[in-house]
This record gives sequence, structure tokens and C-alpha cells, in this order.
Amino acid sequence: MDAQQLFQQIRNKRSFLCIGLDTDIKKIPDSIRNTADPVFEFNKAIIDATAGYAVAYKPNLAFYESSGASGWRSLEKTVAHIKENHPEIFLIADAKRGDIGNTSSLYARAFFDTLSFDAVTVAPYMGEDSVKPFLGYPNKWVILLALTSNKGAADFQYLKNEATGNALFETVIKTSQNWGTPENIMYVVGATKAEKLKDIRDIAPEHFLLVPGVGAQGGSLQEVARHGMNSKCGLLVNSSRGIIYASNDDDFAQKAAEAAKEVQREMETLLHQADII
Amino acid sequence: MDAQQLFQQIRNKRSFLCIGLDTDIKKIPDSIRNTADPVFEFNKAIIDATAGYAVAYKPNLAFYESSGASGWRSLEKTVAHIKENHPEIFLIADAKRGDIGNTSSLYARAFFDTLSFDAVTVAPYMGEDSVKPFLGYPNKWVILLALTSNKGAADFQYLKNEATGNALFETVIKTSQNWGTPENIMYVVGATKAEKLKDIRDIAPEHFLLVPGVGAQGGSLQEVARHGMNSKCGLLVNSSRGIIYASNDDDFAQKAAEAAKEVQREMETLLHQADII
Repeated sequence: MDAQQLFQQIRNKRSFLCIGLDTDIKKIPDSIRNTADPVFEFNKAIIDATAGYAVAYKPNLAFYESSGASGWRSLEKTVAHIKENHPEIFLIADAKRGDIGNTSSLYARAFFDTLSFDAVTVAPYMGEDSVKPFLGYPNKWVILLALTSNKGAADFQYLKNEATGNALFETVIKTSQNWGTPENIMYVVGATKAEKLKDIRDIAPEHFLLVPGVGAQGGSLQEVARHGMNSKCGLLVNSSRGIIYASNDDDFAQKAAEAAKEVQREMETLLHQADII
Repeated sequence: MDAQQLFQQIRNKRSFLCIGLDTDIKKIPDSIRNTADPVFEFNKAIIDATAGYAVAYKPNLAFYESSGASGWRSLEKTVAHIKENHPEIFLIADAKRGDIGNTSSLYARAFFDTLSFDAVTVAPYMGEDSVKPFLGYPNKWVILLALTSNKGAADFQYLKNEATGNALFETVIKTSQNWGTPENIMYVVGATKAEKLKDIRDIAPEHFLLVPGVGAQGGSLQEVARHGMNSKCGLLVNSSRGIIYASNDDDFAQKAAEAAKEVQREMETLLHQADII
């Protein structure tokens, strides 16, 4: 999916919501826990109930890998379900991969070929040749970690460079702009760092930003939009637990839809205010 | 496995060789390519032929993930084979994971519980809470990326901090020593950066270092040992392609054994010279 198609979907759905499919087998309601593949059944119900309000889904690989090969199979089925039934969706593998070049090529094959993700999150520590293999696929995206939403972000991401005075996350954004374009690189910027979004917009005015941390982690959607939105929206704001676990009971899909709709309404207002729709 | 047991194995086998199981389906000899699980059959033959010369094996997850759930199953079978038949082996998941705390906990569960790895490679970019969950398992290890063997290492890992003058990889090593001990943290240091091993030994005298890049990537074993060895060896030197693809023909396992034995002999000499055996 290219940037124009993603922007069109944002306007059509009046939403820039990404729903994180961090599906924990321990939190699945009893009513589907005894099915053959409860993780897939849960995802399917959540997706079908919320797809009208979301432009992207983002399975976090850890939740699937923790169940080994069977978890991987649940992921494959989830991807296939989305591609077949909701082909407009932008599908992100939240995998935070990155390795030497020939190895990153295989991760790219895993997520873009074997599975059919549109984007994969990548950790920047190993530099250009660890990221480039993901950029060789037309209409596929790297979403590079820049400034993450967790406390540990402070350990290294804010360290200032002796020569330039730039924080590491700024150096990552600036350097990586030599590797790709706003058509194939996005950046992860945590909503808990909303005040930094303005600085990031200055150095990456056109790139999409994937913003986790709204909801359970405490970030504010208004603040994110105020500092991070550009003329083509330029934002995908993720919510995971706040939507998929809106209820732990048999009404989980309906409650998830209500939670997603509430966020979509708020996003619609923000898109109106920015004259995007 | 604890550090003492690993050191004992190094003395027993007179080797500090780690063999990288970067098993590419495209490079598997014809004779086993048509078996039900050629990746597993290849690994099994390689492992059984080389286990006398190696103290560790290191499957790189990308090679398995690129085949989806079936690749994950080949990995599970490989791990089970090693645990059953070569229980002395130190088993490393070369996964380069790292995510916010609750997610890293699930990666830890994936590699330490669901699979039975002794160690997992972790990327440091997201800081303390992305690494800590892996450190909560007794006798399991984090192998933290410090200075990697690839060209892209130069993009961020050498950046000097304004306040301390330390390169990022040095900051990673120093900071992470507050998170764990030489009993549960190792560092990845590329053999292609052998001259830096001395500096790293100054700031991490007791930690094991996992050193990739000898062989196909051009690093020298003598240089690595000269600069990186400590009184308890403190090194695991990885070779992947140079051993597992020593031959692409039906004699692949025998040739792998010969290649591994050659490295082991060289290591034995180095261990002798250092009065470790």
C-alpha cells in the first residue's frame, strides 16, 4: 500500500486509528477459550467488529511467538483473514527486528512474502545495512524505532551526540532519511513524549509517524494531533489494550467496537479541525 | 546453564566455538531436500557431526521465521534434538528482540519457556525495561548487542556522547552493567572490530563476549583471542557459513565436522597459550 492509498483510507474512514492485536491467551473470554484456535477466533471477532473504525492493525509478534509454532499459525490465519475480508487495511508486523544485511533480508521475506504485511517495525541499532533489505519491496514500509513510549527510552535515545548536539533519536531520524523516503519509512514516536512530536515534525515533516502509548500508557490523543499532524494527517495512532480488552466478557467484540468508535469520533473531530476532511 | 558450567564445558571440549545454525533452505543438499523437514534434517546432521567441537549453537531466528509456522516447527525440533542428545550445549536464540516491558516478558517466555534456550540476543535501543524481563530467569542469559560486525555498526554505535565522551556501544555496556551481572549478561562484539575488544575488556572484564564475524565476515580468531580472552576464556566465537556450508554436497556433515575440528584445534592452542587448559 502506498502513502496516497493510506491517506485515502484515513479520509474515507475519518480515522487514523491502528489497533494493536496484542492478544494474550490468558485474557481471552471463556466463551472462545475452548475453540481450536482461541487467539485467531478472538482476533477475528475483534477485527470484524472494529474494521470500520480503524485503518491499520498491528499484531505484536511477541504475543504469537510466546506460543511457538501454534502461535505463528494463529498469526498467519489472522493476516489471511484481514487480507481476504478487509483488504483496505494497512497491516503492521510489530516485530522490532534488525540484523546484518543477509539476515534482515530473511526477516523481510518472512513479513512481506511469507506473510503479507504492509509494514514491519525495525530497531535502528545496527544501522543502514540492517534496515535497507526491508526497503527493497515496492509499496512496503519500514517503521523505524525513533523515540519509544517506555521508561527505558531515556537510557539511550536521549543521549546527545558530541559532534552535532542531536539526541540519538534525532540522529536516527536524520540519518535514516538517506536510506529511504516518506513513501517507505515511518517512525515510531511514543505518545508519552507528545511534546517531542513538534521537534520531530521539524526534521521529518512528511513522514508518517506511528504513535503508540495512547490509552493504557497514558498519552493524550489531542496532544499527539496538535504536535504531530501534518497536511496529510501523517499519523497512525495505536491503541491496544484499551480497545481489545474493553471487556473480558462475552461482549468483548461489541465493547471493543464501542471503544474503537469512540476513538474514531475523536479522530474525526481532529481531522475536521485540521481541514483534512 | 551458569557461567561455571559453561567454563567447564569450554575446558572439557578445549573449544569456545559457537556454531551458527543459519540454515537456508536454498543451500540444503539435494539428498535431504525432499525429506519431510529438510531444515531439521540438515541441522540434526550438522549438530551430531560437530557437537564434539562446539560448546554452543546459535540458530538465527530470521532463517526459521522466513518459512513461517513450519520454520518455527523446524526450530522447535532442532532445540529438542540438542536438549535430548547434547545436553551440555549452551543454546542461543539469535533473535535480537527488545520491546516495552510487558512485551519483552512474552519474548522471554517464548525463548526460555516455550523453547528451552539458554540465552537470547537482545537489542538495547529501548533501554532497561526492554531488557530486564529476560534477566528474571535463573541461569538464563541476555546477550546484548554492543558493537556489531556489520558495516552499519558505524551509523550509531560509534556516536560519542556529549557528556561522557563514550561511544554509544560503551554506554550500552556500562549502563547495562547496572541491570544484571556477568552471570546473566553477555555482549555481542563483532570480530571485525577486534582492536576494540581490548577497550571493551577494560570496561567489562568478567563478562562473556559473543563474537560473530570470524570466517565469512573476515575476522581473525587470533586477534579476537589476543584482545578479548580473560582468565575464564570469556569468549564464545561464532562461525556460521564457514562450517555449516563447508560443502554443499552429500558430504556436508562430514565437511562441517572437519571445518569445526580445525577451528577447535586452533582454539585449543589459544586456550593452552592462555594457561586456561
